[in-house]
Amino acid sequence: MSQRTYQIAVMPGDGTGPEVIREGVKVLEAVARRFNLKFNWNYFDWGGDRYLKTGETIPAGGIEELKKHDAIYLGAIGHPDVKPGILEKEILLRTRFELDQYVNLRPVKLYPGVWTPIKDKGPEDIDFVVVRENTEGLYAGGGGFLRKGTPYEVAVQESINTRMGVERCIRFAFEYCRKRNKKKKVTLVGKTNVLTFAWDLWWRVFQEVGEEYPDIEKDYAHVDATCMWFVKNPEWFDVIVTDNMFGDIITDLGAMIQGGMGIAAGGNINPQGVSMFEPIGGSAPKYTGKNVINPLAAICAGMMMLEWLGEKFKDQALVDASSAIEKAVIKVCRDHLKSLSAGKMGYTTQEVGDLVAKYSEEGV
Amino acid sequence: MSQRTYQIAVMPGDGTGPEVIREGVKVLEAVARRFNLKFNWNYFDWGGDRYLKTGETIPAGGIEELKKHDAIYLGAIGHPDVKPGILEKEILLRTRFELDQYVNLRPVKLYPGVWTPIKDKGPEDIDFVVVRENTEGLYAGGGGFLRKGTPYEVAVQESINTRMGVERCIRFAFEYCRKRNKKKKVTLVGKTNVLTFAWDLWWRVFQEVGEEYPDIEKDYAHVDATCMWFVKNPEWFDVIVTDNMFGDIITDLGAMIQGGMGIAAGGNINPQGVSMFEPIGGSAPKYTGKNVINPLAAICAGMMMLEWLGEKFKDQALVDASSAIEKAVIKVCRDHLKSLSAGKMGYTTQEVGDLVAKYSEEGV
Ligand SMILES: CC(C)[C@H](C(=O)O)[C@@H](O)C(=O)O
Ligand SMILES: CC(C)[C@H](C(=O)O)[C@@H](O)C(=O)O
Repeated sequence: MSQRTYQIAVMPGDGTGPEVIREGVKVLEAVARRFNLKFNWNYFDWGGDRYLKTGETIPAGGIEELKKHDAIYLGAIGHPDVKPGILEKEILLRTRFELDQYVNLRPVKLYPGVWTPIKDKGPEDIDFVVVRENTEGLYAGGGGFLRKGTPYEVAVQESINTRMGVERCIRFAFEYCRKRNKKKKVTLVGKTNVLTFAWDLWWRVFQEVGEEYPDIEKDYAHVDATCMWFVKNPEWFDVIVTDNMFGDIITDLGAMIQGGMGIAAGGNINPQGVSMFEPIGGSAPKYTGKNVINPLAAICAGMMMLEWLGEKFKDQALVDASSAIEKAVIKVCRDHLKSLSAGKMGYTTQEVGDLVAKYSEEGV
Repeated sequence: MSQRTYQIAVMPGDGTGPEVIREGVKVLEAVARRFNLKFNWNYFDWGGDRYLKTGETIPAGGIEELKKHDAIYLGAIGHPDVKPGILEKEILLRTRFELDQYVNLRPVKLYPGVWTPIKDKGPEDIDFVVVRENTEGLYAGGGGFLRKGTPYEVAVQESINTRMGVERCIRFAFEYCRKRNKKKKVTLVGKTNVLTFAWDLWWRVFQEVGEEYPDIEKDYAHVDATCMWFVKNPEWFDVIVTDNMFGDIITDLGAMIQGGMGIAAGGNINPQGVSMFEPIGGSAPKYTGKNVINPLAAICAGMMMLEWLGEKFKDQALVDASSAIEKAVIKVCRDHLKSLSAGKMGYTTQEVGDLVAKYSEEGV
């Protein structure tokens, strides 16, 4: 039995975020009953509505508040009435950066019975993890305008890559690959032949750090080719490590081949600090309040959160709870849902949450 | 009958480049006989072998030589014994930049009978064109190192975007869309919510230029989401306009859904200058000299070249020749090839060239 009360910051966010997080918390409470876990949920109302009312994205002291928690459980950030970039940068990216969540961890795993848009591939072929650098690169915000608004305008956007930032991310990937213990292969995904500053650094660090992992195969692929292999030969991959921007792109493609936004979740990881877990689908404003959005991605984010906390705090009950959720999700995908897409599941958002909660608590 | 003798610079390049270009020239000679066209082929031996022998990538005066031609027909650049980046930057990118080929035009079209790795989509769903900016962005080569080789190293890579460069590319996309006259929709693909300098410029110019095209629908998609739609809803697209790096990534994914590197071709376009046409598959060193590589992509590059020259010089014979090649390619895909992949076609490289040449000359 777990002794610790886990302090979870919950940020339901915008659009359908609150609906899916509600189901996620329902499932986490269900496994808490079964495995004797204690969670304390602290809600934060950051997001588009609050911003439109108060002009504030993260209130003063907000980041310090987050730091008092064991993990953060995020719904979605993004509001149709707010100019693109404001909420994303001032809430989501700021949290990633200030909490130094330097890895974005994105398992791409096709569950049995889930429809993938690609031909001739099944769960045995689609099972890899992307380790995306999450605190630098093109996301650092460097750049600016010259002669803005004139015919001679120049807009510069900078990708900033540091030895420290690249090294810790690559090391995380090798460690993760070793622990995962599947194909034992790390693929660096970049663009060495054109972006010869950024990817020269990545390449050198990959070689150097790689030498410490003789048990792990090293591979390299250009980002453009990688998108092709995701669709044609996803079985080639085990662990991928890449920068922030390329990671953003390939993980969305990865989400699609694992069944789409209805199921894809990720973790923003700081191994020494507070990590944040989120469904990656966005706030999907057009489905808000309709009880049709698929909560499985949020539920899977919760499942990742438990696994991560379990390993961090060496609490086996959490790890067991996490795998109970995974089994329940697999059962619901296989035996219940007609589709993972919003409005086509054959069940409401709440019903899907109820089913996963039930199977997680009872065991399957 | 066409009066002009077209001056074509041929750069077979590395690996399987010469093999596929040989078949391409064979097909172009075949339509020349049928449509009374005259081509003068001037060969340039630039590439990895020459570089390894002489240390030279483009010899002195080389770019000036290219400028004397009506078009350039390129095989592939890239050699396993040359460090990544050298040949690509000093030959391919230098030519694109110095000839100011500011658009990379990539039709993504699934021909009947061609196998696509995505489910439930046919030729009626996969038919769009990517207009990729080809002379700036992250490809400009801006950036550098600070404290290289130390634990405090910083590597910066800059995306440089100019009003002029962005505007001419966007305008090209709208003009192309109007002429194409299909769905009449241009989609800007970017990352406005994070790369708030570069994509602010792109967004503003897209709105401004778009106003001049009231007959054309305007749409926007994030690059990450776009990769998902390519796989799930390719029928949403008509003409896409995007920057150099995102264009590089999404056009490779596009190549995959239209059947792969065996068929995908592109043009590096300078409407006022000399354009260059290439199969996009790379030099595929492991297949060199085996007579197994698919020459259709090179043949399609030749077909694009004729269409482009035909419109530029108002020479209907060239346009007719181009569509004769397209019909022949479709017939060969539908009635002959078992697969478009190297070694699995059921025919040799030369036999495929012979078939297309025959059907192009005889008509189908
Ligand atoms: C919402 C956006 C800022 C974010 C990103 O680009 O990182 C999202 O696409 C993601 O992948 O988490
Ligand atoms: C070979 C490489 C430099 C090139 C690019 O990145 O532009 C290629 O991938 C392409 O798309 O033509």
